[in-house]
Amino acid sequence: MPQSFKTLYRVSWVDTDAAQIVHFSNFFRFFERAEEDFYRHLGLIDWLGSKDVIMPRVEAFCQFKKPARFNDLLEIELTVEELKEKAVKYGFRIYNKENAELLANGYLVAVAVNRYTLKTTEIPKDVAEKLKTYHNSREKQK
Amino acid sequence: MPQSFKTLYRVSWVDTDAAQIVHFSNFFRFFERAEEDFYRHLGLIDWLGSKDVIMPRVEAFCQFKKPARFNDLLEIELTVEELKEKAVKYGFRIYNKENAELLANGYLVAVAVNRYTLKTTEIPKDVAEKLKTYHNSREKQK
Amino acid sequence: MPQSFKTLYRVSWVDTDAAQIVHFSNFFRFFERAEEDFYRHLGLIDWLGSKDVIMPRVEAFCQFKKPARFNDLLEIELTVEELKEKAVKYGFRIYNKENAELLANGYLVAVAVNRYTLKTTEIPKDVAEKLKTYHNSREKQK
Amino acid sequence: MPQSFKTLYRVSWVDTDAAQIVHFSNFFRFFERAEEDFYRHLGLIDWLGSKDVIMPRVEAFCQFKKPARFNDLLEIELTVEELKEKAVKYGFRIYNKENAELLANGYLVAVAVNRYTLKTTEIPKDVAEKLKTYHNSREKQK
Repeated sequence: MPQSFKTLYRVSWVDTDAAQIVHFSNFFRFFERAEEDFYRHLGLIDWLGSKDVIMPRVEAFCQFKKPARFNDLLEIELTVEELKEKAVKYGFRIYNKENAELLANGYLVAVAVNRYTLKTTEIPKDVAEKLKTYHNSREKQK
Repeated sequence: MPQSFKTLYRVSWVDTDAAQIVHFSNFFRFFERAEEDFYRHLGLIDWLGSKDVIMPRVEAFCQFKKPARFNDLLEIELTVEELKEKAVKYGFRIYNKENAELLANGYLVAVAVNRYTLKTTEIPKDVAEKLKTYHNSREKQK
Repeated sequence: MPQSFKTLYRVSWVDTDAAQIVHFSNFFRFFERAEEDFYRHLGLIDWLGSKDVIMPRVEAFCQFKKPARFNDLLEIELTVEELKEKAVKYGFRIYNKENAELLANGYLVAVAVNRYTLKTTEIPKDVAEKLKTYHNSREKQK
Repeated sequence: MPQSFKTLYRVSWVDTDAAQIVHFSNFFRFFERAEEDFYRHLGLIDWLGSKDVIMPRVEAFCQFKKPARFNDLLEIELTVEELKEKAVKYGFRIYNKENAELLANGYLVAVAVNRYTLKTTEIPKDVAEKLKTYHNSREKQK
């Protein structure tokens, strides 16, 4: 049973800044891109893109270990760290695919919200069911 | 009678790329930011942001003369190059405010579209009226 | 004696996403923009932009309380949360200027690094001296 | 003999704006991403990324025919429209891969510049040789 989802991203010139490394804010965009690939993999991407339930981010965190540079091939690993009725916390690790070095790790917390009432709501059962497969329970993590 | 609208923008670190200059795509974002400041100046910003008539861009062009760098203060000059029933063409010039050097010039063409039918429609009279004030007619330009 | 630095930022159309709110990653860019305004205010912006000592980010965090939308005027408040020999932690709060609602709060940790050796180094004395003025010591905070 | 290079790009959430379509400025970034994939395909990507000769853009143009949306798979087609001693003009067409609709077309002109003297210089022979293979001569185009 897989516990993590992995996807690739190639660093583009526009991702870099004048320090000649990827701008730190873009790591959060890579996190989200991995989440999109993950939902695509789960067959849920249409749900993510046009839905009654939206999943705004309520928290974001990242530690930057080593810089990424133009043309680097990144491997982004996603796990479901916590799964609650109305919220999900994804963990991310970004590696340099070529040398397997860890460049960054962090998380995003998203909450399910009804698009029209803007009140928190439950994550749909079928979505939650699929997310569970990638849930790293505490027992398994340590 | 003023024929151009001018606004300022300060280059942020994230606007630069690994060549240590502003990424060329950001000049188009500066164009649009000047357009937003222009509509704010005209008292039309609420119209631009939430409206039945949307103004998607159908053409964009820019010549890059000299690079802009981190912390540069840019002056962006907007003129209304062409004003038709259903379309407007803005001209832009971006200067380095400190030394008055021209860094880039270009244009955007936007077309009025009904948000719901997605068909082209007329630019509202009151909007067109205000845009005319900044219209550089050919006779005046040359 | 001022303990926080405040600056303004106007949300541009490009800052928004298909949820019609500011993309979460852009809050980190607003944090950094406030840092740049802060260094400009301190007379240290040239140091930040072209220097032997660079200040890469090693940690970034943000809680998103309420959405920001197109044309919102944001007030970004910066404090120096921690000041060490080789690192600084800035705290940020982003408010909707019009109604004073807190939209987001978070922090950035930056470490001083020698540009050529890429080893951590001390924050220059004159920079540290100026940062101290904005340092919220624990005693003062609570 | 191939005359065009094709590559794919999947639209991410962050690429969209509050009109729920891809922000027009991002099409220029997709152009450049295709150029990077092209140089990677030619075995010249290291040349593009770290080189004595840099290739700043001097002109950019795009016509937007139809909107791209979140999760759309785009096919970007690149041709070498003009190849001079010191400059290259790439033509681009962006299609919706699923239904083959043309979404946008445009071009970028890049000039070879010596990184240190910042004077225009010749495109290296081996680079020019490879670019020629993708050159749409006028005779062939019409």
